[in-house]
Amino acid sequence: MIITLLTDFGLQDSYAAGMKGIILGICPDARLIDISHLVPARDIRSGAFLLESVYADFPPGTIHVAVVDPGVGTGRRAIAIKTPHYYFLGPDNGIFSWIPARECSWESRSLDNSKYWRPRVSSTFHGRDIFAPVAAHLARGIPFPSLGSICSPHIAEWSRVLFREFEIEGEVVHVDHFGNAITNITMDHMSRLPRNGQKIVRAGGHCIRHHVESYGHTSPGTAITLIGSSGRLEIAVNMGNASTELGIAPGTRVIVSCSSSS
Amino acid sequence: MIITLLTDFGLQDSYAAGMKGIILGICPDARLIDISHLVPARDIRSGAFLLESVYADFPPGTIHVAVVDPGVGTGRRAIAIKTPHYYFLGPDNGIFSWIPARECSWESRSLDNSKYWRPRVSSTFHGRDIFAPVAAHLARGIPFPSLGSICSPHIAEWSRVLFREFEIEGEVVHVDHFGNAITNITMDHMSRLPRNGQKIVRAGGHCIRHHVESYGHTSPGTAITLIGSSGRLEIAVNMGNASTELGIAPGTRVIVSCSSSS
Amino acid sequence: MIITLLTDFGLQDSYAAGMKGIILGICPDARLIDISHLVPARDIRSGAFLLESVYADFPPGTIHVAVVDPGVGTGRRAIAIKTPHYYFLGPDNGIFSWIPARECSWESRSLDNSKYWRPRVSSTFHGRDIFAPVAAHLARGIPFPSLGSICSPHIAEWSRVLFREFEIEGEVVHVDHFGNAITNITMDHMSRLPRNGQKIVRAGGHCIRHHVESYGHTSPGTAITLIGSSGRLEIAVNMGNASTELGIAPGTRVIVSCSSSS
Repeated sequence: MIITLLTDFGLQDSYAAGMKGIILGICPDARLIDISHLVPARDIRSGAFLLESVYADFPPGTIHVAVVDPGVGTGRRAIAIKTPHYYFLGPDNGIFSWIPARECSWESRSLDNSKYWRPRVSSTFHGRDIFAPVAAHLARGIPFPSLGSICSPHIAEWSRVLFREFEIEGEVVHVDHFGNAITNITMDHMSRLPRNGQKIVRAGGHCIRHHVESYGHTSPGTAITLIGSSGRLEIAVNMGNASTELGIAPGTRVIVSCSSSS
Repeated sequence: MIITLLTDFGLQDSYAAGMKGIILGICPDARLIDISHLVPARDIRSGAFLLESVYADFPPGTIHVAVVDPGVGTGRRAIAIKTPHYYFLGPDNGIFSWIPARECSWESRSLDNSKYWRPRVSSTFHGRDIFAPVAAHLARGIPFPSLGSICSPHIAEWSRVLFREFEIEGEVVHVDHFGNAITNITMDHMSRLPRNGQKIVRAGGHCIRHHVESYGHTSPGTAITLIGSSGRLEIAVNMGNASTELGIAPGTRVIVSCSSSS
Repeated sequence: MIITLLTDFGLQDSYAAGMKGIILGICPDARLIDISHLVPARDIRSGAFLLESVYADFPPGTIHVAVVDPGVGTGRRAIAIKTPHYYFLGPDNGIFSWIPARECSWESRSLDNSKYWRPRVSSTFHGRDIFAPVAAHLARGIPFPSLGSICSPHIAEWSRVLFREFEIEGEVVHVDHFGNAITNITMDHMSRLPRNGQKIVRAGGHCIRHHVESYGHTSPGTAITLIGSSGRLEIAVNMGNASTELGIAPGTRVIVSCSSSS
C-alpha cells in the first residue's frame, strides 16, 4: 500500500522521518513516497495545490497524508476523506479544498477515534502522533468508518474563481522551482470563454498576450501563458523566472479576458 | 530491514544516492529511509540532536547510519553501537553522544574488519565505502561482534547540561526549519527544578517568561518556550522565526531559572 | 528492479512525485531511488556529471532516468541507452555524454514507440508522460529494441578535455554542497602526465600547488586539489568553500601542468 507525504516540515529536520518510522512500525510493508516537504511554511493554499496537482497520478488505493498545520495543538479538527480511488488525511484547514469538487463521490470523517493514534499525543506534532499512525492503520485495512464520525471538510475561498462576462478572475496559488506562477484557473475554466477571441492575461501590472503550448516555443525572456502539466493556467518566462521578473507571487490576482473577435 | 541515513551531504549531489546504491547491491531488500541530508556542513552537534530526536520512532532492528564526518580520511575511528533495539553506525566524533545515556545497555565496536568494507576505500567518502556496506552486511544478519574490536564511543561536552541551585544551564543544539531553537535541556532536566516556581528562560540577551503547551497558544509574534515534540525545551516565536528574531543559534547558552514562590 | 531519478525539478513541487506515482501504477514493485532533484535548473553538464559519478554504484539491472530537459516540448529526441549492466533514459541533449566512453559496449534507441507512453502526453512534462512510463515498462521486462529505432546519442563538447605537452586543459563541471569544484579531468587523464614532475593546477586566476589525499590533510583555509570520490580532479579549500573563496564555478577553465623535474 502506498502512503504519500506532503508537509511544510522542510528537509533539514527529522520530522518527516519521524512520521515514516511510526508508519513502518505499524505497517512494515507500506511504500512511502514524498510529495514534498518544502511547502512554504504554513502556506495551506500552496499545499492544497501541490496535492491536487499530483494525487491522481498514483495508483488506486494510495493514501495521501498532507500536513500543513499552523493550528496544530489548538482546536482545529483532523479529518480523512475517502474518494472512489484514494484516501486523504490531514488537518481540516482547507488543504483538501480542491478534492471534493473533482471527485464524483466522497465521504469525510473526523479523526476522533484515539485507538488509532499514538498512545501519547504531543501538542505540536500531530503528523507523527495522529496522521502517521492513522494512515498506517488504514494501509493495514481497518474500515474507513472506524476512524470517527462523519463531518464536512472546510473549503477555502482561494479554491474558487470568479466568472464575469468575457472574463475570469483567479489568483496565483503556487510558484514552482522554475519560477513559473501557477493559477487556480483550469483548462476547464478557460474553455468557458469564447473560443475565437484573443485571450489576454493580466497579473501584477503586466499584460501577457502570448499563449503557447510549451516553454520552448518563444524567444528567451518572453512572458508567456500556457496550460501547464497540472492542467492549470501558468504564467512563465521562457528560460527565465516569471515570479521574480514579473513581480508575481502566491495571492497575486490574475484576470483572463477575451476580446470579442467580431 | 530498515536502514536510515543522516548526513551533511546536502541534496544537490549524488553522495547519498551512492550510499544507497552500494547498500542495495549487498542487501536488495533493505528499506532505505532518509532522516536528513541537510545537517549543517560539519555540524556534529546538530546531527547528534537530529538522530537522538527520531531514532526511537523506528521499529526495533532499524540500523541508523549517521555520517557527519569532517575528519574523514584522517585518523578518526569508525564505530558501531548496538542497543537493545537499534544499531548505529558512523564516525566516532561525538555524533552518538546522546545514545548511551538513554539506553539501558549498549555495546560499541570499532569498524576494523575490512572484510565488510568496499574492496577499494577512498580517502574522502567513507559513507559509501565503509558505512554503507557495513550497514548492508548488518542488515543481512552478520553477527555484531564480527565488525571489529570493542571500544568506547566519544561523548561530546555539548551533550551535557549544568545544574545549579534553582537553575539549569544548557545550549541551543539545533535550529529547525521553522526557526524554533531546540536546546539540550530535556523535560526530565526541567522536572528537577522546583515545581511551583515561575520558570524564566534566558538566551541571547532575551528573557522569556511565556511557557506554553503549543505554538498556537499565544498571540503571533510572542516569544515562548515549550517542550517540543522531541521532549526538549524549545524557544519559539508564534507564527515567526525565533532564531532570526531573537538572534539565537546553535551554541547559544540557555539558562532556565526558577524563582522561589514563597 | 531499481529505478533512479535525476532531475532539475527541485524539491518544493510535486513533479518528481508525479513520476513516481506513474511508475508505481505500471510497476508496483519498482524500487525508487532519488539521485538528486537539485541539478541547477537547465544545467545539462552538471546533471551529466552527477549521473556519471554514481550510476555504477547501483546493482546491475538498475534503470537510470535523467531529466534535465530545457528543450521539452520542442523537437529534441528522447532516448534510451543500454549498457552491459544498466539502462539510461532521458532527453538526447548530452546528459549521457560520459556513458558511451566508459562502457565497453552500448546500444541506443530513440523512444519512438508511443505504446509505452502515457495515453495523453503534455508538452511540458515528458518526465511524467514519457520517461516514467517507459522506465516502468522496462522494469517490467519489455525488450529493449521495442522502445524504438536505433540512434546515436549526442555527445557534448564539455565532456572532453584537451591534451598538450605536459598539460591538460579541462573545466569545472559541478560545484558540490561543500563548495568543492569538480572537474572533467579524471585520474586516468592525470596519469598521462609525467609521474615525477610537480603538478600545478590553475583555475580562476589561482595557482594551486598542494595536491593531497584527503580534505583534512592540510591546515584549514588552504586551497588544495585532490582526486575526489568520483575519481575526478577536485579543487577544495580545507574546512572552507572553494567555489566562493576562489571564485570558480561550473564552466571555469582548469589547466593542470607538470613542470619537468630534470
